[in-house]
Amino acid sequence: MKELESARSEINSHLRTFLAHQSRVLHEISPSLDSVAVALSEFILDSGKRLRPLFAYAGAIAAGKKPDGADFAAMGSLELLQACALIHDDVMDRSDTRRGKPSIHRRFENLHNDGQLEGSASLFGDASAILLGDLALIWSDQALHSAGLSDHVLLSLLPTFDEMRVELMAGQFLDVYEQGQKSHDADRSLRIARFKSGKYTIERPLHFGAIMAGGSRDLLMALSHYGLPLGEAFQLRDDLLGVFGDPEQTGKPAGDDLREGKRTVLIAMTHEGLAPHDSKRFSSLFGRVEITHAEIEELRSLIRSSGADHRVEELIEHLTSQSLSALDAEVISHDARDVLTTLSTIATKRSK
Amino acid sequence: MKELESARSEINSHLRTFLAHQSRVLHEISPSLDSVAVALSEFILDSGKRLRPLFAYAGAIAAGKKPDGADFAAMGSLELLQACALIHDDVMDRSDTRRGKPSIHRRFENLHNDGQLEGSASLFGDASAILLGDLALIWSDQALHSAGLSDHVLLSLLPTFDEMRVELMAGQFLDVYEQGQKSHDADRSLRIARFKSGKYTIERPLHFGAIMAGGSRDLLMALSHYGLPLGEAFQLRDDLLGVFGDPEQTGKPAGDDLREGKRTVLIAMTHEGLAPHDSKRFSSLFGRVEITHAEIEELRSLIRSSGADHRVEELIEHLTSQSLSALDAEVISHDARDVLTTLSTIATKRSK
Repeated sequence: MKELESARSEINSHLRTFLAHQSRVLHEISPSLDSVAVALSEFILDSGKRLRPLFAYAGAIAAGKKPDGADFAAMGSLELLQACALIHDDVMDRSDTRRGKPSIHRRFENLHNDGQLEGSASLFGDASAILLGDLALIWSDQALHSAGLSDHVLLSLLPTFDEMRVELMAGQFLDVYEQGQKSHDADRSLRIARFKSGKYTIERPLHFGAIMAGGSRDLLMALSHYGLPLGEAFQLRDDLLGVFGDPEQTGKPAGDDLREGKRTVLIAMTHEGLAPHDSKRFSSLFGRVEITHAEIEELRSLIRSSGADHRVEELIEHLTSQSLSALDAEVISHDARDVLTTLSTIATKRSK
Repeated sequence: MKELESARSEINSHLRTFLAHQSRVLHEISPSLDSVAVALSEFILDSGKRLRPLFAYAGAIAAGKKPDGADFAAMGSLELLQACALIHDDVMDRSDTRRGKPSIHRRFENLHNDGQLEGSASLFGDASAILLGDLALIWSDQALHSAGLSDHVLLSLLPTFDEMRVELMAGQFLDVYEQGQKSHDADRSLRIARFKSGKYTIERPLHFGAIMAGGSRDLLMALSHYGLPLGEAFQLRDDLLGVFGDPEQTGKPAGDDLREGKRTVLIAMTHEGLAPHDSKRFSSLFGRVEITHAEIEELRSLIRSSGADHRVEELIEHLTSQSLSALDAEVISHDARDVLTTLSTIATKRSK
């Protein structure tokens, strides 16, 4: 869709300007920070669907505003926040790759090894990634504060921006905590999906854009009815991609979530659908660090034979159509309906 | 000093209210987040000198303002930022204790073990600490945004608040990076001290308070002349405490920095003052994880025989008197001089 393409390119252009400026600030503090600036800029600019900024764009359109430069710059702050989430996530999950490249902690571990620095390369990698994630979080604030929004609009955005970030970290903690539970539970996993994706990835960015454009309380509510089910569908697609996704497309190794033992709705439904004997076999392979390719295939066929992949696809379809039916609300501008429909497809039919 | 005692108690009371409110917000998202709320609240409320909020207080006084409730609430945000820095620092340094108690990653590792959760307790501890640090950083924003400041004051604070946080993370990275260098260098370590402590701990909090009170550009400059040398002196005292401090007071094991192999101005000066043979012996013990108590004593006496501890004490004295002489500036209110003089003593003559 041309309109979204052009919005994405506006967002990218503002992000590029912001990152170039911040890189200069870091360089002035010390040239030893150049590696930080380059790593963060590449991480943010080299790829990414800009899904959260685009939902903010859609929120602004829904409120009847044609976003200007300041609005696009402010939308970029959502991408910087997402960079923090991904960088810290990779440290926590011990993930080696992100978007087909070394994750940030791996990148700095390599830099330590290549430069033959003193001390532990792995600790250096982790410490760097923690700090780069923190910096991305702070930059996200800075991008919003310096976007050029009017004082009134900036101040009206702050509460939503703060709540969104608390919800993100809360969702992340619940996800980590869930991995430690003895039982799998589809309802619990859906609840986490609601916070991690429903609210953080979709509902809040929509609100962010709508508030930016002075949208009414009724509009925010209508956007929630569209955003929350879509966010859950988005997360369910993520779960499927983590198991069945093509490494060429996802930038992650095949069956990565199976190796990590990631507890998702898909896995909970797999256990519900398997006979006790198969469920036991599944558990014995699931989350094994040294898992072989054949064992990954075995897990995949157990999921298929349980019917869980079909159940999840059906759930995605159900949630997506529930989401789209919310677009009939009068309060959503006609222009926005096309954009929101396209975004719904991007969020749920994607292959990466 | 009574005035600072009463300011500290105002700051604590606002922090307590803020944390109680945020704990309820987390509980409403999920009761599984209670452990997060309790850990962060205890970490922040159980101890801490409130040094950064108090420097902000002094900055406001210097600009001739008697801080009100909203100002005190906003000062608390500096303590929440510091909580993020400490929690992440302990993960990066693999420190087991903070203020005499388990560090946050250890606390959650213990929680994982006690609850016999699935998976790696150590990874769970690290992931929790990364997320709690992130949350403290976000809460720090929220405390500032919701303090009740006028729109004008809040907006005028944001750029300084952002710059301070970038400087903090930059200083932290430079510190981590320095640990990987092959050579020790007192000048480089002093430069890091300037960012980590001169600017972040003292100069910026002073500016924060002064801006809150509508202080002039001249006042900010005068506060920098006081704050920057004092911040370096503060960091040098920290270096001495990390080596010679009493564990009962510091809440850290004896000679913790020696075990960690932390490169500080003190250590760089030790190498400068030792004969090659002794310097080599020093390096062979420094940073050894399994270091014995006798070896820590040996390192301490090598530092003493190099004269480095005296040089650092002299440097602290020199920087402190340079800092205090800046208080003669006319632009600093008379009331503030007493407060700033007392804070200078607290920052440089402390035993914890």
